[in-house]
Amino acid sequence: MNIILIDQEEVTNNRIVLIDRRSDHIRKILGAKPGDTLRTGLINGPIGTSKILSIQGNAVEIETSQHVHQPERPKTDIILALPRPIMLKRILSQAATMGVERIFLINAARVEKSFFAASLLQNNNFYQYLLQGLEQAVDTLVPQLFIHKRFKPFIEDFLPENIVDNPVLLVAHPGHFPSLAESVSLPLKKKTFVAIGPEGGWVDYEIKKFQQKGFLPFTMGPRILRVDTAVPAILSQIDLLRNIKPKF
Amino acid sequence: MNIILIDQEEVTNNRIVLIDRRSDHIRKILGAKPGDTLRTGLINGPIGTSKILSIQGNAVEIETSQHVHQPERPKTDIILALPRPIMLKRILSQAATMGVERIFLINAARVEKSFFAASLLQNNNFYQYLLQGLEQAVDTLVPQLFIHKRFKPFIEDFLPENIVDNPVLLVAHPGHFPSLAESVSLPLKKKTFVAIGPEGGWVDYEIKKFQQKGFLPFTMGPRILRVDTAVPAILSQIDLLRNIKPKF
Repeated sequence: MNIILIDQEEVTNNRIVLIDRRSDHIRKILGAKPGDTLRTGLINGPIGTSKILSIQGNAVEIETSQHVHQPERPKTDIILALPRPIMLKRILSQAATMGVERIFLINAARVEKSFFAASLLQNNNFYQYLLQGLEQAVDTLVPQLFIHKRFKPFIEDFLPENIVDNPVLLVAHPGHFPSLAESVSLPLKKKTFVAIGPEGGWVDYEIKKFQQKGFLPFTMGPRILRVDTAVPAILSQIDLLRNIKPKF
Repeated sequence: MNIILIDQEEVTNNRIVLIDRRSDHIRKILGAKPGDTLRTGLINGPIGTSKILSIQGNAVEIETSQHVHQPERPKTDIILALPRPIMLKRILSQAATMGVERIFLINAARVEKSFFAASLLQNNNFYQYLLQGLEQAVDTLVPQLFIHKRFKPFIEDFLPENIVDNPVLLVAHPGHFPSLAESVSLPLKKKTFVAIGPEGGWVDYEIKKFQQKGFLPFTMGPRILRVDTAVPAILSQIDLLRNIKPKF
């Protein structure tokens, strides 16, 4: 937890009493005392500092101040064939840590249908994993998460309506395709959508549909990556390509 | 399991009877039958194919043949401040999947000393996680793993004796350092050592020691990554920089 995240609704007259895992972190990990200053952020808002007013039992009262630094919205969206829940938890945290604007969890031929019934996807249970990723990264902007149980309506109707401003459209697929670096203009500045398939990959029909909608297949190389390796690997390469200097 | 890995010592007259999780995979996941051909590899040896001779109960007898394609040895070594065991399992698999030649697990000020007593590090228990990573990647070359319980002898004595041919030496550290892309000559062809710190990072003394030995600090950007995100993220960027075309 590299930042204490606060919901604006928790705050009254700039004050808030923390009694959950944030309190535990402040008392047990940071060993902070009244008068100390903490790095805090308002969820989906600015980052700043807060002062500890008092610690009584497990209740830590803090006063927020100087929340002025607004994090920059990530320019990458990921479209992910729904992975198994235990893997998805980690992927959501890692994606939030690395910075994505939106996460579309979609169906695909090789997705186990039972995964859509996972408790992780009910009642916003996934939210905590996104927050944990942001607490790690020192960010406040919670990725938006969308669940699409049917592939065809997603790719044929939803996507075309939600893709604006001519973004970069990419789909990861093993085979004789260009690398990510070969697939984009450098430095990569545009909004980017990247689709990542299930274990076993997309089926031909799905790749064809992506291609019809303008997605360019790319390969991460000859080694076959598990989805929970592919997500940080791809996001990390996109980050490099966004920040590469003209001299390259 | 994208390849069935076989220890040369298991093979007699090109034949081997599998009765463990490899047998389960062949029967239950692949649904293979006698006469079918499988992708197989000899551990630390070549990749080829094998034919299923018979399936009786959970015993699958195969005949190896045409093992001729020798995988290329990865040119990256990682030096890793020992992470907690549950995270290390995943990191070992992921590092093997992405391809590293050697893994040095070392001590650091912010490593919990109890981690060195983890059962994962005893009796080669870590070996199965490396194999799982190779089975995913379709590789046979098991990364060599070294454990160093003391930082100073590692950096002062062991490393200088084991660094030859003027490799690229890098240490990941948050702060105002160049990015990975800015730290190497492109395309990156040389042997590369990359050191990755513990949760909380290296302490000043450790960074200074690395710098004295010629390691160049680099940053992965302003977002703070957990070690199990940093490892695939860094290895993925190195892979990109190794394969980048001259036009960049």
